[in-house]
Amino acid sequence: MSNQGKAALCGRHAQGKILTESVGVSVSNVEKEQRFTMCQVADHYGFDNIADIPRISITRAADVPVVIPSTLFTMAPIALDQAVDQPNLHKPTKTESSTRDTGESIRLAARTGAYDKQTSGAAPTYVQANLIALPSRFAADFRLLCKRNPVPCPLLAESKEVGRWDELKSWVPGVTGKEIAGDVDLRHDFPKYMVYEDGKLAQSHCRDVGSIWSEDHVGFLIGCSFSFEAALAAEGLIPSHMAHGRNVPMYRTTLPLCPAGVFSQSTYVVSMRPFRRRDIEKVRDITRSYVATHGEPIAWGWDAATRLGIKDISKPDFGDSPILPDGSVLVQGVGDEAEEFVPVFWGCGVTPQEAVRQAALDGPVIGHAPGHMIVLDIRDWDIVPST
Amino acid sequence: MSNQGKAALCGRHAQGKILTESVGVSVSNVEKEQRFTMCQVADHYGFDNIADIPRISITRAADVPVVIPSTLFTMAPIALDQAVDQPNLHKPTKTESSTRDTGESIRLAARTGAYDKQTSGAAPTYVQANLIALPSRFAADFRLLCKRNPVPCPLLAESKEVGRWDELKSWVPGVTGKEIAGDVDLRHDFPKYMVYEDGKLAQSHCRDVGSIWSEDHVGFLIGCSFSFEAALAAEGLIPSHMAHGRNVPMYRTTLPLCPAGVFSQSTYVVSMRPFRRRDIEKVRDITRSYVATHGEPIAWGWDAATRLGIKDISKPDFGDSPILPDGSVLVQGVGDEAEEFVPVFWGCGVTPQEAVRQAALDGPVIGHAPGHMIVLDIRDWDIVPST
Repeated sequence: MSNQGKAALCGRHAQGKILTESVGVSVSNVEKEQRFTMCQVADHYGFDNIADIPRISITRAADVPVVIPSTLFTMAPIALDQAVDQPNLHKPTKTESSTRDTGESIRLAARTGAYDKQTSGAAPTYVQANLIALPSRFAADFRLLCKRNPVPCPLLAESKEVGRWDELKSWVPGVTGKEIAGDVDLRHDFPKYMVYEDGKLAQSHCRDVGSIWSEDHVGFLIGCSFSFEAALAAEGLIPSHMAHGRNVPMYRTTLPLCPAGVFSQSTYVVSMRPFRRRDIEKVRDITRSYVATHGEPIAWGWDAATRLGIKDISKPDFGDSPILPDGSVLVQGVGDEAEEFVPVFWGCGVTPQEAVRQAALDGPVIGHAPGHMIVLDIRDWDIVPST
Repeated sequence: MSNQGKAALCGRHAQGKILTESVGVSVSNVEKEQRFTMCQVADHYGFDNIADIPRISITRAADVPVVIPSTLFTMAPIALDQAVDQPNLHKPTKTESSTRDTGESIRLAARTGAYDKQTSGAAPTYVQANLIALPSRFAADFRLLCKRNPVPCPLLAESKEVGRWDELKSWVPGVTGKEIAGDVDLRHDFPKYMVYEDGKLAQSHCRDVGSIWSEDHVGFLIGCSFSFEAALAAEGLIPSHMAHGRNVPMYRTTLPLCPAGVFSQSTYVVSMRPFRRRDIEKVRDITRSYVATHGEPIAWGWDAATRLGIKDISKPDFGDSPILPDGSVLVQGVGDEAEEFVPVFWGCGVTPQEAVRQAALDGPVIGHAPGHMIVLDIRDWDIVPST
């Protein structure tokens, strides 16, 4: 299935123009303007996979080569197949992550404390996940909350048994828990954690939850949007926050989740990426198949912000304030109908932590610190259904 | 799994007081006031299953035996384990369905035209389902709509291949398509159908869609709430509309579905059953495990009606107007806090037909006529997960 999925990914996203020599490895034999797929490039230069190709260049509207910053590159290491209008792409390197990293190497580094920063861009194409670990008496309700709300809470895996932090049960069809993450320690493999007591944040961005995780805890891994962001970038629709090395803006909403047991008053958290109105159908098409990582948007347009109960788009509840590709502020009514940038909203993996907070659960509940995910062994193409 | 599920169902729902002799078969050896489970009764008298026991009696608050009307009985053929306050339970028989009916016998009768009425109460404990059949180009989007919105659109099965009306692919874990319905004809096994053209209703309550179903149609079967209504009745929480032989009230809402492809502007349809505020947690507990048939409610209380955009609770968009157990009208503010009847809302299987209407799909789309379901071979306990 992996090979099939990988082939589909290559066929769909990876075709691009290779215009200039890559930085860091010699690709001087690649003829300028010749169309390659990145899979062909990988094969040609002996990389095991396209993620291993260190850096590429893309063309702008005026055919001036623009180097993709490494932050963006490590998120989306695939050539773009169309001209893009991204004036501020020359950004300093924001990550020290090696493109030779794997999910396992990041996990092991986090476990020893050697890796303690955000995982945006770490080990490209390896799926990342959010965490909720809670006392076992709440596990059935939380599992049901995910099943009833698969868009904001796409459940990838959970502790194989109560108390287990070292072995997973998979909820991804056709993939085993061992394949999701073989060598795993849910107590240490996230670079940073949050701890809630009675629904209130008790510890923020702590390194170690080994003393908090008890034999009664059940850990749940929830899909995150990094996978589809890379796919958008690969199609020339680079989310603005990626291009500028910022966090995606996230908002609390008034949209209710379908209740499940103790989680009876939960509401969606959404992430937002501005796109031109004319690009929305393409954005929907690209993200639709990422069913395990929030999939296509749940709403779009200025009226959607109102319907979701978002009062001020410039003031997200989490992450950085929204900007456009040129770095300017997102405001309503700029440009004509089709060209205007409008907010596009996705279900967000912060939703489960909000649900825990809103339910004011007794006992310690552990979450990841926003942006500090676990990096798994499975790849983006393993979670895109072949049908 | 069936036996395990059945055992769980018996253990959970079926324990009751058998007070008087059943009508139609001799149960004179059953000692009055002795506590039995209905499974024990079935075993004792040689019935294959509890649904085959023709009639039972329950106790009221004053220990006066009340015979459950056959309409209700065929919906909920299980003894009640607590006193109920249902003054108007003596209702005339509303169905001619034999309690020896099976899912297959109802399907075959519908196929020949011998059965052409509503299926409420037909072949108790056999799971019933809603229908959407649409041109294959919309099938992937519709399947995704169900996957993204499993509470209003719980997908049980679909055509095994494009055009197939005689064989199913199962979406119920651990159950095959053949087990869901062995001898099946999706074009004729519903007593009545609706046909939409370009999102507009073209035919209402028609008997035959054999000439409309094409080689390009894909049929989808969606779970319906009859299963959990029987479970509520078995616990003494008889939905008022059942007690009075009426249809459940259903309402269009402003609550958006998570979009999926062409289904980008869909909204929930909800069914509503009034319950006392003090009973809501019990209602939630009983219905929670029915994950394939809408599960626990999505909202409750008078403020929920407002949040859902329901302007007048007395005027449902489908079904009959809501009443209380005593036959009176449901109005706000009657009784003290805990005793007051308030509206409780569930996801409703009419939602997919509304989605088709709202998407204005080209070409003929076929749905069932409200209340005129297909009756399957699987039983209520086959769709309740054992965990």
